[in-house]
Amino acid sequence: MTHLSNTVQDNRISLLGLGPMGSALGGALLKQGHRLTVWNRTPGKADDLVAKGAQQARTVAEAATASTITIVCLNDYPTMYRVLDGAAAELEGKVLVNLNSGTPSEARAALAWSAERGIDYLEGAIMVPPHLIGEPGAVILYSGDQGVFDRHRTTLASLGDPRYLGADIGLAVLYNTALLDMMYTTINGWLHATALLDSANVSAQKFAELALGWFMPTVVDYASLTEQAPDLDAAHYPGELGTLAMNLNALEHITRTSEEQGVHSDHPRLMKELAERAIAEGHGSQNYFAVYELFKKTDSAAAAHRAFLATTAGGHAKSL
Amino acid sequence: MTHLSNTVQDNRISLLGLGPMGSALGGALLKQGHRLTVWNRTPGKADDLVAKGAQQARTVAEAATASTITIVCLNDYPTMYRVLDGAAAELEGKVLVNLNSGTPSEARAALAWSAERGIDYLEGAIMVPPHLIGEPGAVILYSGDQGVFDRHRTTLASLGDPRYLGADIGLAVLYNTALLDMMYTTINGWLHATALLDSANVSAQKFAELALGWFMPTVVDYASLTEQAPDLDAAHYPGELGTLAMNLNALEHITRTSEEQGVHSDHPRLMKELAERAIAEGHGSQNYFAVYELFKKTDSAAAAHRAFLATTAGGHAKSL
Ligand SMILES: NC(=O)c1ccc[n+]([C@@H]2O[C@H](COP(=O)([O-])OP(=O)(O)OC[C@H]3O[C@@H](n4cnc5c(N)ncnc54)[C@H](OP(=O)(O)O)[C@@H]3O)[C@@H](O)[C@H]2O)c1
Ligand SMILES: NC(=O)c1ccc[n+]([C@@H]2O[C@H](COP(=O)([O-])OP(=O)(O)OC[C@H]3O[C@@H](n4cnc5c(N)ncnc54)[C@H](OP(=O)(O)O)[C@@H]3O)[C@@H](O)[C@H]2O)c1
Repeated sequence: MTHLSNTVQDNRISLLGLGPMGSALGGALLKQGHRLTVWNRTPGKADDLVAKGAQQARTVAEAATASTITIVCLNDYPTMYRVLDGAAAELEGKVLVNLNSGTPSEARAALAWSAERGIDYLEGAIMVPPHLIGEPGAVILYSGDQGVFDRHRTTLASLGDPRYLGADIGLAVLYNTALLDMMYTTINGWLHATALLDSANVSAQKFAELALGWFMPTVVDYASLTEQAPDLDAAHYPGELGTLAMNLNALEHITRTSEEQGVHSDHPRLMKELAERAIAEGHGSQNYFAVYELFKKTDSAAAAHRAFLATTAGGHAKSL
Repeated sequence: MTHLSNTVQDNRISLLGLGPMGSALGGALLKQGHRLTVWNRTPGKADDLVAKGAQQARTVAEAATASTITIVCLNDYPTMYRVLDGAAAELEGKVLVNLNSGTPSEARAALAWSAERGIDYLEGAIMVPPHLIGEPGAVILYSGDQGVFDRHRTTLASLGDPRYLGADIGLAVLYNTALLDMMYTTINGWLHATALLDSANVSAQKFAELALGWFMPTVVDYASLTEQAPDLDAAHYPGELGTLAMNLNALEHITRTSEEQGVHSDHPRLMKELAERAIAEGHGSQNYFAVYELFKKTDSAAAAHRAFLATTAGGHAKSL
């Protein structure tokens, strides 16, 4: 069992939060033979897990006392502080793993909160829906102290494939946010394109054959995008095979066609304006990927607003 | 040779426009043994093709006279009318295939222009860059009269795999526009997500491993999207596995994180606002794909502007 020599043999684990996701996590932990203690604001939600062998704690402090590792899966960070406030003493010297969604600055604040109280803090971001927890292919991204992660890797592996991203505590939620950003954007692109065809009475099924069955996998294939990544890192956008100026022409057709066909046109117009701005900033003879330089910059309105908030007491990024 | 019985045995073909794309089309036609006649405003651009056996016409009328099928590959529709104006008589009773990019309404206007002059008109949209013309996998989409298409399918196959979409003349450019829409949107999604990671000093190469090497192919795979198509057609958005309201939460995190990290935030904000609007319109307990209902509608600002232009003389959609 040498491969377990670095891991904690103690199989007790506590779980706070039994929404759809927390309940799935609890089920997976029981299935892997953990001695599980659960707590939830609405106690009735623990019934299923208790029937399968979990202990139900009456208070958060009781749950925190029961194990050396506590997993939190609540709706957001403000709720996490509300829930943990009375149990900080019981968590001292132990490990807290937070699987809430949020932003990197919320993760950094939670790390500071934990450090002040002598709690080892790890952040995780769950990349699958509840019904896939514990199944092969379920990925959970983690960031924070690598020693803490390594000591609990085996326990965390009960929930899904744990992927460690780095010591910067914000990385798990940042990766999660970026991946979901790409997911929603791609889905919206497909829906918008489908709406264009719908305006000519072509069904989504018929369009999907060509768009998803042929075009996307062969023309916008992920392997070719991956090949562009080093050029993004080097800000190298050679225009020999096609320039931003040529692409602007296509973006104008997309915007104009959306308007003519009576389809929502805000999104193509935004893409067109981005390309126009990149050209105005001198990228016209580079290739399309040069718009990356713009994405790296905050749009000026938001930047001005943030600067304004920074000068006022109690300004919070949430309202930007 | 029964499979050729419906095709035109005449292998003469004329080509107007020798930009990068026209030149590639000419090269492919010569390679397939066609007797090619070319014309270009700037005559010097014909030199390469003439060296490979093409005839150079001094006028558009001369080119139109030389063959029963004329392919046009110019920068846009206004140029096409300018170029063809003096050769309408020579094109009468013949076939004109236009491979310009444009909008469906431009395609419809070109069909009407051709019909008035007794010219059979087909629209094509080239889905590959010039260097792939004539190669396996090069796809060209066509729309218009099916009889005309069928009679010239073999000739058109010299340029790439010809795919016939239907009699509605606007379909080729509409499909082309929709596919490019999806391409740009997906690329922008990747670039924006990459910019988020760049704000935490993670390289595009490192992010691509997870985003393109794992997440997109397994979580946003095209097969699962394709399975949603019938539900889009039926406006059926069951919310059992996840609701728009839940997705709004993620879209808020994406927008807030972009702002906090100093990354361009217009696009995530637009996605968030779309989800908010869909919820306001009663789709909150349906799944995310219900935003499709919004994409099918023109945004009200553009609609108001269009209505305004319609009441003014000389209003043109281009300025919307
Ligand atoms: N569901 C998914 O597909 C999914 C996927 C990835 C990540 N996540 C993340 O996982 C976390 C949990 O998600 P979820 O789907 O289980 O549902 P959720 O609605 O986000 O969270 C429900 C949990 O939060 C608790 N809660 C809410 N307000 C509270 C308060 N004021 N005081 C105490 N507890 C409170 C609920 O307690 P009650 O039972 O008493 O209401 C319940 O335990 C979220 O951060 C979510 O973003 C979810
Ligand atoms: N290149 C691609 O990757 C690609 C891919 C798919 C579709 N397309 C479409 O194919 C068409 C042609 O594209 P292209 O790449 O070859 O280059 P282009 O710059 O779009 O078009 C160049 C052609 O237009 C002619 N032209 C421009 N203005 C003219 C005028 N006022 N009078 C007469 N001729 C004029 C040029 O003649 P001169 O040589 O005399 O300037 C040349 O023959 C476009 O509609 C484009 O959207 C291109």
